[in-house]
Amino acid sequence: MFSETELNTIVKKITDNYQNEELFYVKPGHQMPNRDTIIHIILGMRQIMFPGYFDEERLSRKHPGFFLGHSILKLYDTLMAQIKAALTQFEKENGDISEAETEGRADEICSSFFTSLPYVQQLLMKDVQAAFDGDPAARSKEEIIFCYPGLLAVFVYRIAHELYRLKVPFIPRIMAEYAHGRTGIDINPGAVIGEYFFIDHGTGVVVGETTEIGNNVKIYQGVTLGALSTRSGQLLRDVKRHPTIEDDVTIYSNATILGGETVIGKGTVIGGNCFITESVPEGSRVSAKKQDLSITEKRGKEGELFDSFDCSLL
Amino acid sequence: MFSETELNTIVKKITDNYQNEELFYVKPGHQMPNRDTIIHIILGMRQIMFPGYFDEERLSRKHPGFFLGHSILKLYDTLMAQIKAALTQFEKENGDISEAETEGRADEICSSFFTSLPYVQQLLMKDVQAAFDGDPAARSKEEIIFCYPGLLAVFVYRIAHELYRLKVPFIPRIMAEYAHGRTGIDINPGAVIGEYFFIDHGTGVVVGETTEIGNNVKIYQGVTLGALSTRSGQLLRDVKRHPTIEDDVTIYSNATILGGETVIGKGTVIGGNCFITESVPEGSRVSAKKQDLSITEKRGKEGELFDSFDCSLL
Amino acid sequence: MFSETELNTIVKKITDNYQNEELFYVKPGHQMPNRDTIIHIILGMRQIMFPGYFDEERLSRKHPGFFLGHSILKLYDTLMAQIKAALTQFEKENGDISEAETEGRADEICSSFFTSLPYVQQLLMKDVQAAFDGDPAARSKEEIIFCYPGLLAVFVYRIAHELYRLKVPFIPRIMAEYAHGRTGIDINPGAVIGEYFFIDHGTGVVVGETTEIGNNVKIYQGVTLGALSTRSGQLLRDVKRHPTIEDDVTIYSNATILGGETVIGKGTVIGGNCFITESVPEGSRVSAKKQDLSITEKRGKEGELFDSFDCSLL
Amino acid sequence: MFSETELNTIVKKITDNYQNEELFYVKPGHQMPNRDTIIHIILGMRQIMFPGYFDEERLSRKHPGFFLGHSILKLYDTLMAQIKAALTQFEKENGDISEAETEGRADEICSSFFTSLPYVQQLLMKDVQAAFDGDPAARSKEEIIFCYPGLLAVFVYRIAHELYRLKVPFIPRIMAEYAHGRTGIDINPGAVIGEYFFIDHGTGVVVGETTEIGNNVKIYQGVTLGALSTRSGQLLRDVKRHPTIEDDVTIYSNATILGGETVIGKGTVIGGNCFITESVPEGSRVSAKKQDLSITEKRGKEGELFDSFDCSLL
Amino acid sequence: MFSETELNTIVKKITDNYQNEELFYVKPGHQMPNRDTIIHIILGMRQIMFPGYFDEERLSRKHPGFFLGHSILKLYDTLMAQIKAALTQFEKENGDISEAETEGRADEICSSFFTSLPYVQQLLMKDVQAAFDGDPAARSKEEIIFCYPGLLAVFVYRIAHELYRLKVPFIPRIMAEYAHGRTGIDINPGAVIGEYFFIDHGTGVVVGETTEIGNNVKIYQGVTLGALSTRSGQLLRDVKRHPTIEDDVTIYSNATILGGETVIGKGTVIGGNCFITESVPEGSRVSAKKQDLSITEKRGKEGELFDSFDCSLL
Amino acid sequence: MFSETELNTIVKKITDNYQNEELFYVKPGHQMPNRDTIIHIILGMRQIMFPGYFDEERLSRKHPGFFLGHSILKLYDTLMAQIKAALTQFEKENGDISEAETEGRADEICSSFFTSLPYVQQLLMKDVQAAFDGDPAARSKEEIIFCYPGLLAVFVYRIAHELYRLKVPFIPRIMAEYAHGRTGIDINPGAVIGEYFFIDHGTGVVVGETTEIGNNVKIYQGVTLGALSTRSGQLLRDVKRHPTIEDDVTIYSNATILGGETVIGKGTVIGGNCFITESVPEGSRVSAKKQDLSITEKRGKEGELFDSFDCSLL
Repeated sequence: MFSETELNTIVKKITDNYQNEELFYVKPGHQMPNRDTIIHIILGMRQIMFPGYFDEERLSRKHPGFFLGHSILKLYDTLMAQIKAALTQFEKENGDISEAETEGRADEICSSFFTSLPYVQQLLMKDVQAAFDGDPAARSKEEIIFCYPGLLAVFVYRIAHELYRLKVPFIPRIMAEYAHGRTGIDINPGAVIGEYFFIDHGTGVVVGETTEIGNNVKIYQGVTLGALSTRSGQLLRDVKRHPTIEDDVTIYSNATILGGETVIGKGTVIGGNCFITESVPEGSRVSAKKQDLSITEKRGKEGELFDSFDCSLL
Repeated sequence: MFSETELNTIVKKITDNYQNEELFYVKPGHQMPNRDTIIHIILGMRQIMFPGYFDEERLSRKHPGFFLGHSILKLYDTLMAQIKAALTQFEKENGDISEAETEGRADEICSSFFTSLPYVQQLLMKDVQAAFDGDPAARSKEEIIFCYPGLLAVFVYRIAHELYRLKVPFIPRIMAEYAHGRTGIDINPGAVIGEYFFIDHGTGVVVGETTEIGNNVKIYQGVTLGALSTRSGQLLRDVKRHPTIEDDVTIYSNATILGGETVIGKGTVIGGNCFITESVPEGSRVSAKKQDLSITEKRGKEGELFDSFDCSLL
Repeated sequence: MFSETELNTIVKKITDNYQNEELFYVKPGHQMPNRDTIIHIILGMRQIMFPGYFDEERLSRKHPGFFLGHSILKLYDTLMAQIKAALTQFEKENGDISEAETEGRADEICSSFFTSLPYVQQLLMKDVQAAFDGDPAARSKEEIIFCYPGLLAVFVYRIAHELYRLKVPFIPRIMAEYAHGRTGIDINPGAVIGEYFFIDHGTGVVVGETTEIGNNVKIYQGVTLGALSTRSGQLLRDVKRHPTIEDDVTIYSNATILGGETVIGKGTVIGGNCFITESVPEGSRVSAKKQDLSITEKRGKEGELFDSFDCSLL
Repeated sequence: MFSETELNTIVKKITDNYQNEELFYVKPGHQMPNRDTIIHIILGMRQIMFPGYFDEERLSRKHPGFFLGHSILKLYDTLMAQIKAALTQFEKENGDISEAETEGRADEICSSFFTSLPYVQQLLMKDVQAAFDGDPAARSKEEIIFCYPGLLAVFVYRIAHELYRLKVPFIPRIMAEYAHGRTGIDINPGAVIGEYFFIDHGTGVVVGETTEIGNNVKIYQGVTLGALSTRSGQLLRDVKRHPTIEDDVTIYSNATILGGETVIGKGTVIGGNCFITESVPEGSRVSAKKQDLSITEKRGKEGELFDSFDCSLL
Repeated sequence: MFSETELNTIVKKITDNYQNEELFYVKPGHQMPNRDTIIHIILGMRQIMFPGYFDEERLSRKHPGFFLGHSILKLYDTLMAQIKAALTQFEKENGDISEAETEGRADEICSSFFTSLPYVQQLLMKDVQAAFDGDPAARSKEEIIFCYPGLLAVFVYRIAHELYRLKVPFIPRIMAEYAHGRTGIDINPGAVIGEYFFIDHGTGVVVGETTEIGNNVKIYQGVTLGALSTRSGQLLRDVKRHPTIEDDVTIYSNATILGGETVIGKGTVIGGNCFITESVPEGSRVSAKKQDLSITEKRGKEGELFDSFDCSLL
Repeated sequence: MFSETELNTIVKKITDNYQNEELFYVKPGHQMPNRDTIIHIILGMRQIMFPGYFDEERLSRKHPGFFLGHSILKLYDTLMAQIKAALTQFEKENGDISEAETEGRADEICSSFFTSLPYVQQLLMKDVQAAFDGDPAARSKEEIIFCYPGLLAVFVYRIAHELYRLKVPFIPRIMAEYAHGRTGIDINPGAVIGEYFFIDHGTGVVVGETTEIGNNVKIYQGVTLGALSTRSGQLLRDVKRHPTIEDDVTIYSNATILGGETVIGKGTVIGGNCFITESVPEGSRVSAKKQDLSITEKRGKEGELFDSFDCSLL
């Protein structure tokens, strides 16, 4: 093992890194939001939104009032503490405000957030319906609520979006990344998404911050709704740079649609693997032209096939 | 914080949502299958299939009989309770059957399932061999068993598929989504997959419900074996709508193969990013024609490059 | 339930499988590395690299020396035990060495590894900067450290790569697969990656074992830096088979770049969905030619649209 | 290690023990009450009885109605399942009753139990007051609620006694033994205990099943309120065999009071270490006569003292 | 189950109890100390005091400085937060002080406390020696440190006493009750206890708040060092009401020594079961006079014995 | 907070304590037995001894052979590792032996231990019977197995005693102290105890290392079977210094019986609170002579009573 001196050198060097980097350590008296707590809040919300699916108890059934009142109050407290922490941590960007002011704002945000829950729940019921209508493999709506990653991602998005709208820093992103980690679906909480939204399979889906999506839209795995370029980085912040998808659009797997001025018109169907950077009129069916594939005939028996395979052609 | 009245209003609205939505609450006396328990079953199966890899003990080595007998009985009980719950929950679709009948069916299914395990294990050994033969980065078979997501996904599929064949509702899907969440690989338990199957990297792979895959097939990340369209939704249920992949086929990354009548012939190699909706004869090598790329020369130094970058060309 | 005899038959068959398969059971006296412990090490490293972000305490702030000394010693012990287990388990490939020799090698590796930490930390600070500069949606560097999957994957890669360089078997791969599972980003620890590296969104990214990446490179979700073919399997081991990406390159989503002789020149921008198997000169902007899309006009009202949709055209 | 044969012999012998002993295994289809669940119920009751002391949240404060409604319903369900299990397990003593009857009885018991809670809480408030008045070392009533073992034991007794009164088998005893294990105070749930009861220190206190205790009684560590003899065992079941302690009695440490006909009259004080098997009239002060102690003078210096110590005199 | 109305009645009654009882709910903005955290602190202290016994790591051995620095800082933070909570909660008794003042006091107390640790550790080493010298059944000092309840109780006492001396409210008592619950030994943190103290077996030992104990004292299970009477309750607070035990005294099992003016002189040995309320001179050996036992001869065979046993004689 | 210098002083002082105290740190390469693991072993043994009581599964019922074989092998491994650690740690007392020798001895001990289990189980069944016969409050044998602390203590004793007989250091004591902590009953594993043994209530019972107890003995809470004096400490090690209790003896609560030459003859009954240091012939009934109690009449009303109470008379 390294000697005491060597160890001290390592310690010294890392300590120096700490001191040279303003990033390290939150401001004194402040505290980062807590990822585990935020996940806990998401799961609590899910019990409220889908009673009887993710709790083991018959509680919500028999006297839903007590269950709801208790659950909401419990989550209110937990969420408000996290929002306060987030506001405090980020106030350096916004000029100093007093602790009481921060507390007041956190409280106000929380009230608005919980007031919107009944509406959010109605949206989610429509999302469930959309998934059932859209997936022949779905045996029941219960299956969708219980195990479809697409619904999980949309549920988390709808919760996170409410907080984004209320200008809560940081927390919506933590929520979105939780869903991203579990499902491979990355919906920025800033996106605006209408009713009856369904994502099938979902792995690799990216929906950018300024995307707008209408009602009754269905997208598949690997679809990107992105920006044309982000090299100009922080200068583009808050600029509309992601596409607009109108009502009744279907986007098949691995299609890519880029750009803030790109509008996919109502009722359009985008075929798989299409790469689109310009607007498409209402009611179109877009597909790559029948792809010119190079198909070479079989040569020799299998063993030989692979040895002789001309990789450069792939 | 909101007042007592405001809180009561929220509670009232959500309670109303509950009552208007037949989805909420399982039938009295019933119970949803339990996701954690099902994951527990998967992990228990994995210990049986790959002894010494996922348990810390030398148990399985010294007296494998006791280890196996005990483990199988333990899992039998746990699985049977879940199957019974699933059958009960879903019997509403099938007309009422008595609890004893349900119990009997669950028991029968469990017996069949466990009887198939030795065979499933032999399949898995062949899958390990396929991965070792197919990946130059693999240092040993142990590495494959221990940490390849492709093998995890195939293992879960093989278990879930047995239950699917035995017409267990819901549980196979929960299993598949567990693997999907951990690996980004989404294999519907209804797919029929032959021996020596290998998925490399795997994130974004989708294998649809009615897909048929032969022996010695290898697929890469981002490959979709999907349906042409699912807009007609529940009407398509149980119709063959995903492709057939014959023996000895290799499908490179991000290729998309769609449609129930699409057959990829024996020994074919599909190049990366190909989009295929029609059958391909035996022994073909399919690649996109050498892609026509627009390559613009370098202009100025780097800083300028990005400022002047003409996004519309991308 | 099956009878005692049937159960015994199943037990017998699986026991036979065990005996027929040399893979099962580690060598007597040996032990597999422990996945949970390795994850624990990763998380411990993360606390050292980003103090104050993933621990709840003000410890690292006030007397960072004690925090670091203690944490390093604790992780040293834990990591060394895992490395020893990995070396022992894999020595069968390398001829037998004594336990003392193995212990000595593990110790030496650990010393080198921890000595490199201050440097690794400086790299990570540059990666954070690259992410902040490159993503308009990033509100602060804290957000990047705290919840960007791209940074998590790069952090794990940088740790795992140090161990790969020191010829530690197995453990770097376990680390990489941990990051892969959480982020959908699969960077082989063997890849060589320069400073200021940023992966945005990231799901589906694959970076192969012999890839070389310069400084200031940015890649998006779904990008594959892969081999042309791996059918020759174990024969290709340690051969350069993945591309070289020079400094200042940007690769947009779902692009695929294959082959060990493929070099993407300095300052190049690769557009989304490009499929590249040959080298590209410095400063190029590569995009698919404006894709020939088949756009069909709207027919009838929406309900009809989908019924009449001609799937074969997709 | 023992051989396969030796192991089989051990297994065989223990299996035989199982078969020879009717005790083993609960009746098919039945289930033992679950100790962990019962402890969970106790702790839940404690949160209801002493809001704000054993939960971290401000929940109970702000809208106590939701907190109470939710908590009671949750505990109702949990407790009812345990009572049903206990009734079923013990019905063999009582002749067979149907599952519906058992369920009905369990429900009825639960309703009565929860209906009594407000009254039990008032008793507990008086017990807290008694402890505060009786212990000069008590700094506040909070301290008593939060950490006095005497109060914990009395709280558990008052809960368990309600269930005992409702003829719930088994569960009251499990509760009592939980308190016994944590505090060393063993109060049989069958004892009848009045208001303002205080046990100080408490370790070693035993209060037998048919004990009756009036109001405002205080007892110290090591006090036994027991039976004269129990050698006749099961024949004595339900016979009054423990003493009666009238109002305003104090019993100092390690005193023993035995016998079903022994009555300690109102206002009596029993001195430490007294051994009492007959009744004592109202208002007495009972102490051992000034104990005749044998006190031998100091001999030599300390080292010698112990060497020469004549143990037989002790 | 009870009706909605009945449930509401119960909820209403308990809510009324809450409102009628000033005890419930801590003051707004305040917080109770947390029992789990305090136990965590005790266990952390134990690792510092007895390195290598209660942690699994070789950490403390190789670079004890880092281990200690880190552990102390970690516990400092945790303890200070608890002390602040305790001071805040109890300030209502002491008139209002500002949060900054409270914080300052907590910090000062913490500094003093940790400064005393090296001394406390030396005391504990002497206690271990005393146990080893005093118990023939002790095989090694390791055994004493690792599993003697007497040492655990003394260790917790010595920690709690330091905090008591520093006038920390509440927390010392929580610590003492933790030890009491685990060992059955109840030492009030206010007692003053000298060097080389040993409690053997220990269950039922009570050492009151104003007890003074010299050096080299040994006591056995069931010994009470108590007050003569505490009926006058809160009036006696802070009055010396428990005995003084001088150096080199041994007190055998179940002896009771009461009263603030009772002094047991240097070198005295108190026999088992003695009941003492007056002072005893130096160097005495005190025992009950040879107890007059009533010994009745054997009558008949065993079965008869118990039937005819005359309980009233016991 | 204290300054860096003050902190360093504390760290320095404690480090010095570590270095001055040979006790600290186990020998290099050695390891203490692990208390949690030993508790785990106890609980595993309990599942084997009382199948169906402490596991939730029907496993042991249906195919007890697999359950037993698996459980025994699992516990064998775990126990053997602990025994090896204990032997290694304590070999310094016994001269050095090689690791292989230690391993061999640990294996031999384990084999003997598990071979004795069927016999131990038969003893325990008799202990259950004794408890049922001896306690009128026992409603069923299930209740005894499930929650009587006396049975828990005797069960742990019987297990620990087997290991004590096989000369396992340290571990039997850890087991005994686990039972002591949970029940307040302290039975030294060295004691020799016959069949049909019952301890009722049990708190405060102490049974010394060289105690011998015959068949059909029953003892109550607070009973000490101890040594006359242990001041000569380590010199008395292994000397018979605790009493012998012959068959069919009953010892009531808080009786104390001391001395290695004290024999309580067959069939004797010892009354509560007796203090005995000499032998008692067969078939005796021993009780304190009817205690001379000082009973003073009631004076005035209650309030006055306590104010005027003359403590010195107690």
